[in-house]
This record gives sequence, structure tokens and C-alpha cells, in this order.
Amino acid sequence: MECDILVIGAGIFGLSSAYYLKEENPGKKVVVIDKYGGPGQGNSAKSEGGFRNLFASETNFLLADSTIDWFKHMEEDLGYHLSLSYIGYLFLLSEEQYTGQKAAWDRIRGWGAEMRVLEREELQEKIPALVTDFGDDEEAELLGLGSVDYGVFGKKCGSIDADALTRAYEEEFLKLGGEVSYGTEAKSLVLKPELELEIPGEPFVWQDSHITGAETSKGDIHADTTVVAAGVWSGGLLDPLGIDSFMRPKKRQLFAFKDIRLEDLFKVEGLNEYGVMPLTILPKAAILFRPELSESSIWLGCADNLGRKFELEEDPQAEEGYYTDNVYHVLVKYFPCFEDVRPMNSWAGQYAVNSYDELPVVAPGPGMIYVGAASGSGIMKCDAIGRIAAALYAGEEEAELYGGRRFRVADIGIHRRRVERESLVI
Amino acid sequence: MECDILVIGAGIFGLSSAYYLKEENPGKKVVVIDKYGGPGQGNSAKSEGGFRNLFASETNFLLADSTIDWFKHMEEDLGYHLSLSYIGYLFLLSEEQYTGQKAAWDRIRGWGAEMRVLEREELQEKIPALVTDFGDDEEAELLGLGSVDYGVFGKKCGSIDADALTRAYEEEFLKLGGEVSYGTEAKSLVLKPELELEIPGEPFVWQDSHITGAETSKGDIHADTTVVAAGVWSGGLLDPLGIDSFMRPKKRQLFAFKDIRLEDLFKVEGLNEYGVMPLTILPKAAILFRPELSESSIWLGCADNLGRKFELEEDPQAEEGYYTDNVYHVLVKYFPCFEDVRPMNSWAGQYAVNSYDELPVVAPGPGMIYVGAASGSGIMKCDAIGRIAAALYAGEEEAELYGGRRFRVADIGIHRRRVERESLVI
Repeated sequence: MECDILVIGAGIFGLSSAYYLKEENPGKKVVVIDKYGGPGQGNSAKSEGGFRNLFASETNFLLADSTIDWFKHMEEDLGYHLSLSYIGYLFLLSEEQYTGQKAAWDRIRGWGAEMRVLEREELQEKIPALVTDFGDDEEAELLGLGSVDYGVFGKKCGSIDADALTRAYEEEFLKLGGEVSYGTEAKSLVLKPELELEIPGEPFVWQDSHITGAETSKGDIHADTTVVAAGVWSGGLLDPLGIDSFMRPKKRQLFAFKDIRLEDLFKVEGLNEYGVMPLTILPKAAILFRPELSESSIWLGCADNLGRKFELEEDPQAEEGYYTDNVYHVLVKYFPCFEDVRPMNSWAGQYAVNSYDELPVVAPGPGMIYVGAASGSGIMKCDAIGRIAAALYAGEEEAELYGGRRFRVADIGIHRRRVERESLVI
Repeated sequence: MECDILVIGAGIFGLSSAYYLKEENPGKKVVVIDKYGGPGQGNSAKSEGGFRNLFASETNFLLADSTIDWFKHMEEDLGYHLSLSYIGYLFLLSEEQYTGQKAAWDRIRGWGAEMRVLEREELQEKIPALVTDFGDDEEAELLGLGSVDYGVFGKKCGSIDADALTRAYEEEFLKLGGEVSYGTEAKSLVLKPELELEIPGEPFVWQDSHITGAETSKGDIHADTTVVAAGVWSGGLLDPLGIDSFMRPKKRQLFAFKDIRLEDLFKVEGLNEYGVMPLTILPKAAILFRPELSESSIWLGCADNLGRKFELEEDPQAEEGYYTDNVYHVLVKYFPCFEDVRPMNSWAGQYAVNSYDELPVVAPGPGMIYVGAASGSGIMKCDAIGRIAAALYAGEEEAELYGGRRFRVADIGIHRRRVERESLVI
């Protein structure tokens, strides 16, 4: 098959990139392939679906803030049902944590993020289900739990149906005449010399070479430009050519709860319009949970880092003991309503972690564009990333993000990368 | 076994780190282990052994410039035979290349690097063996070879016996009472909670954990601090704990020649005190070679990048066709004296490539220090890296490099990394 632009990966980055590439190049044949049977089936649709504009890196703030505006546009103007819920994000912090992060929070406020700092009394009043002080609880001490002294609440934050979002990009892309081919696995990228001599052994080191498409499970696809957006699978395509994917895969597990004992989490006044808990990040062990309004359930995850191996897994699974032995003990101290509550469902996906600076990468290569290293927050930046990929393809210095802000394309590449490392990683 | 500091890897970074750690902490038990039977047997001793202070990144310049001064000290004052030869580095460049790099060269000169730009006439006069212009040679055109319009010559550059250098650090380390154990392979790092509860499943996510040593082929070694300096093998130790090694392994091949037809390369007046070719980098295909004075041979390598896979190989081998089909065609155009000359010997090693910025990493972790990602130029920066590792261990903000210049330790870490990306990669 021949096409102008081949996008490998129908995840959120692949489809948002494909959409903007097709929109800006309507005459070009843009083809998206994915080894799975539908959009977002790799890891995108397994996301917790949280979104926030509270990032310590200004680049991340820009990417997310404009993407969140776009979500609203997609729902209100384009008519997609994305289950967009502005429940907010609530970072629960000890005095020490808050003090350590204060400069970052002030900077974020300076960029215009709507946020509010709640002190302990207000937290207790609004969230009776929360324990803010463990007194002389020996178990809490053993667990190393600090008190909750502050809550930082972000308003332009919440949750979205990541699966629906991915499908919405696909639909928009298809409307423009883009093509998708599922069940089509890219086996390898094809590297060829600019000037083929038809000699065995090409490309030689003295030839200028570039990527000319991919060998797939359904035959070769030739493309002028190949967009590698295969998430955690990008390494398998790029490593054989000695091109870095700037990410390593790490498993993330999610647990869903539906239990009458958790009803207090759906009765929290004064933080959001729904009267529910925001997406809440505990002060310890990177545990977070949020209400999923569509099914009155709680989705809970834990961004464990040290000790959680880097490894590509084809079908990662949640581990039973991970909740009961690990997360539960901390969770139930801060939120005793979880006592004896067990998950009704669990699943796992994989982050493509860029440990250098925890930001995504949109970088050019010979005959290709790499879009990846989402580092666990790709959903909430997807629209900006797609626009940047299209701007890079067009050779533009700047991309226009939704809402009109401009973004220097090279900032998020590699050779002239200019980002602040993200410190508010969840 | 118990020790204060366990250094994994008796390569050049491991041994230089061990040496400075022991020197600054004479009362501590410092143990170096390596799976091979002697120092530098992984990749250090397989190096081409070139050194240069001409780097476009000021950080790299500092690391290399001070290390080169130390080499001299080691040979002149400490009495080691390192085959230190100041043959210089000669970058052969087309007009276009030189113009593109001119700003970088000017910056390097500004830092005090001794260098000189030679124009074509001077190159031709000094190096009759070099072809600078291919006229209407169709083969040269097919190979995409540009003319040689400039040569940038670096004076504080040359070659060193990497094997002898590694052994010298080992000897100095042993003199201080350091211990080495060869044939001892680190199988895995041990991660334990600060406060062990002796419950199965530790460490849990709510425990603060740290590395407490390694399981090795000769039993467990417990250490207060573990220095991971295992080069391309560091990923195998760090990945299981989800700690990034910031490098990927890439094979590099070397070919050695000894042939009467190459004698002109040993008769080059006016560039160095030996009257030989400097280490010379061709304008095309990243091919470089240098005279090895101890055996009147030429060592040649090629820093092929695109298409050269990232992969850890236990025993990488040079490929016969790599020289004859790839390197040879370019080489013989610029230096016709290579016509029909075949290598007498060849070998291969692996670079630990940090594609992000092409600089090494010295970074703290829980109970550990990671020293690696040498990116192919570790030998020439080894002394500075060892000093920085020791300063990091001591909790110092700055390291004092040989000669007295100071270096901010965090600059070469990850969280507060502050380096310029290296563009003069060979």
C-alpha cells in the first residue's frame, strides 16, 4: 500500500496526530494502523481518565490547559459525549510537603490556573470522610503517614472517558477522509537510502537513509512520512534502527469500587458542581482515586515508582495483593469508609515513562515523526500534541494550540528541547 | 559480605569512582565487583582510546579538559605508562559543515581550548595522502562525498591506552586499601524498606525503601551505598527496580591495520610532535582513524548511528562486511593509500548511549549512585566523573576537578540536570 502519511498506533496520540495531519493536509492520504481491533485498545482506553492543568512544568501546563479547553469544545460544540466532569483535583498534603511545593504552586497560579488552597479545618468540614490527623495511632506511624494539613484544589481538572475521547478523534479523522486499518501490526520500520542502488546490504553507512514506511502483518506500507505513535510499543519499532524512544514501559493498575459504604465520597459539598469528591491524591504512596459519575463508582490507582519494573508486557494484569497488601492499608487510614471494601473490578495498562523530564516527546527523524513518551499524562495533553505533530510535519516553527496560544515546536523535540522537568508527577 | 560502598563494575567509571570514594573515605570499606576476570574487560578496554577536549557542550569540555590534565599527571607524576600521545584530533569538514559548526568552534575556542583551523591548501601541503577534492569522480558523487575545505585541529587531544588507564585506577584504588572481586556478577540489586517489618511482600508501596546491596554470583553483598557503574549492563540491574539507566547499548566496531602502504600516515609534519596523522574524522559517514604509535598501526572506527540497533550483546563482534562494504568505499576516496588494504585485526564493544543529550549521568538514587551513560566518550571524562561521584556521595554541592575547577554536581544528575546537548558526537 502507498500513502503520504502512515501513523502507527491508533492510541490517543496517534489519532490526535492523524486528525490534525489530515485536517491540515486534506489532499494527502493519511492512514492509521493499529495491531488491535479498535482505537485506544493499547493503553489509552485503560487510562484512569483524569485531567488537570496543575503541572509544575510550564510546558505541561500549556499542553494540558489548551487540551482541556478543546475537550469542552468537543463536547459542547462538536457534540461528542465524553463524560467530561469537572470534579477537580485535590492534592492532600502535609505541612512539609506543602512548604516544599509552595514555590511550584505559586508559579502555577501565576500562569492563570484556577486553584485554591484549603487548610485543614476547611478540609475536615467539607470532607467528613477524611481523617486529617492520626494522633497516636501506632499503625499510622508504622505506615509513615503524615497528617493532612493542606489541600490544593484545582478547578480546571476532572475526568473524561478516555475511550470515548479516542473514538471521537477517530470519527473526526474519518470524517475528513482519513483511513484506519485495525488488526494491522507494524512489524518493523523500513529504512532505505535516499538514492537506492539495488545493491545487497543497503543502506550503507555512506548513504543518506530515511524511513519509508513499515512492514506490517498485512503487507508493506510505503509512506513519505511515518508517524511512530505506538506508545510503549514504539521501542520495538525504533530500537532496531538505533533511534531512541525516550521512554520505558511501566505497569499501572486500576481498581474500581462500588459499595454503599463509600457513599460519603459522593456527598461532598462546595468543591465541585456535582457535590462529590474531586480526584484526590493522598499524601503518601502516590495513591489517588476519583468518583466515576457514570456508574457511581470509585476508580483508584497508585503511581508506585521505585520497585515497579520497566518492562514491556503484552497484556498487563492488575495484581490482587497489590490492593489488599499495599494500597489498602494507607487508604483506609485516610478514608476509613474503605474498611473491608474490596474492588469489584481491576485492570492494568502501561505508562510510557520519560524519566529524563517526565514530558512527552514530539521529535523529527529521517522520514519520520516520533510522538510519544506520554509519561502517564497523555490523555490530558493529546490535543496539543496532535497539533504540534502536524506543525512539525509542516515545518512550522510554532504550533497554534486550541484557544490561540502558540507553542515552539522544537521545545518538545530532542535536539533543541527546552522544558522544565515535571515535578508534580502522579 | 558487608561493606560501606559497593561499586558494581570495574570499568573506567567504576574504578575512577571507587578510587575517589576510597580516597575521600579512607576509613570506609569500598568493594568493587565485576563479572569479568579483570578491570575494563566489559567495554572500557575495547575503546579506541581517543581523547579530546573539543566538545560543543561546555559541560563535556570541562569534564574532558580536566581529565586530560589528570592523564598527564598520572603519567608524569604517578609514573604510569598510559601511552599518552598528543597526536591531536583533526576534523575534516566541507565548507558547509564548517559554516554550520562555526559558532560551536568559536565557543570552544572561547573556553580556552587550543585549536587551529586549517584551510584546504595547508591540509594538502601537510597531508599529501589526503584527497580534498573529487573533481568529477562519479563514484565520489554517488557516495555523496563532499570536498574537504577545512580541518579543525585540536591540540590537547590524542590517544591513550584505555586498558592501562583502567588498570592504573585499579592500582591506585588498591593502594588505598580498596578491594576488588573479579568473576563476581551482580545478579540483582536488593531493595529493602528502611524499617523492615519481616512481612512477606516487602517492600510495600507505603514503605520508604532503598537499595541495600546486591545479590551476586558469589553471594549477597550488603552495602550502605551501592554505586551502579556497570556500563551497558546497568539497565539489567536498574530496570527491574523501575530506575532509568538513561542509556541504550549500541555496538561500535574497530579495525586495526598494519601495512606498508599506510606509511604516509606516519609521515605528517607540522601537526604533532610525532610527525604522524592526528586522530582524523572524515567529513562523511562518521569514519575516524588514528595511528597507534606503540605498534605503528592504524585503528579505525565508524560511529554509525541510524540503522545501528540498540541492543545489549554479551559478546559483540566486528562484522567483516562492515569494513569492506561500508567504511572502505568512503575511506579510500579520501585516503587512497588504503586501497586494497585489509584489517589485520578487528573487535567490537558497546557504547552506553544517552540520546537525550549525549552526556554522562551521575545521579543519586535511594541508597545508590548511578554513574553511566558515557555515550562513547567515557574514557576521556573518567577522572572528572569519579570525582563527581565522590562529591555526590559526600553530599557536596560542587566537585573539585583536577586542576581546581569546580563543577556543580547536580548539573550532571537528572532532577536538576543543566547541560548543553553535545552536538560534536563522533
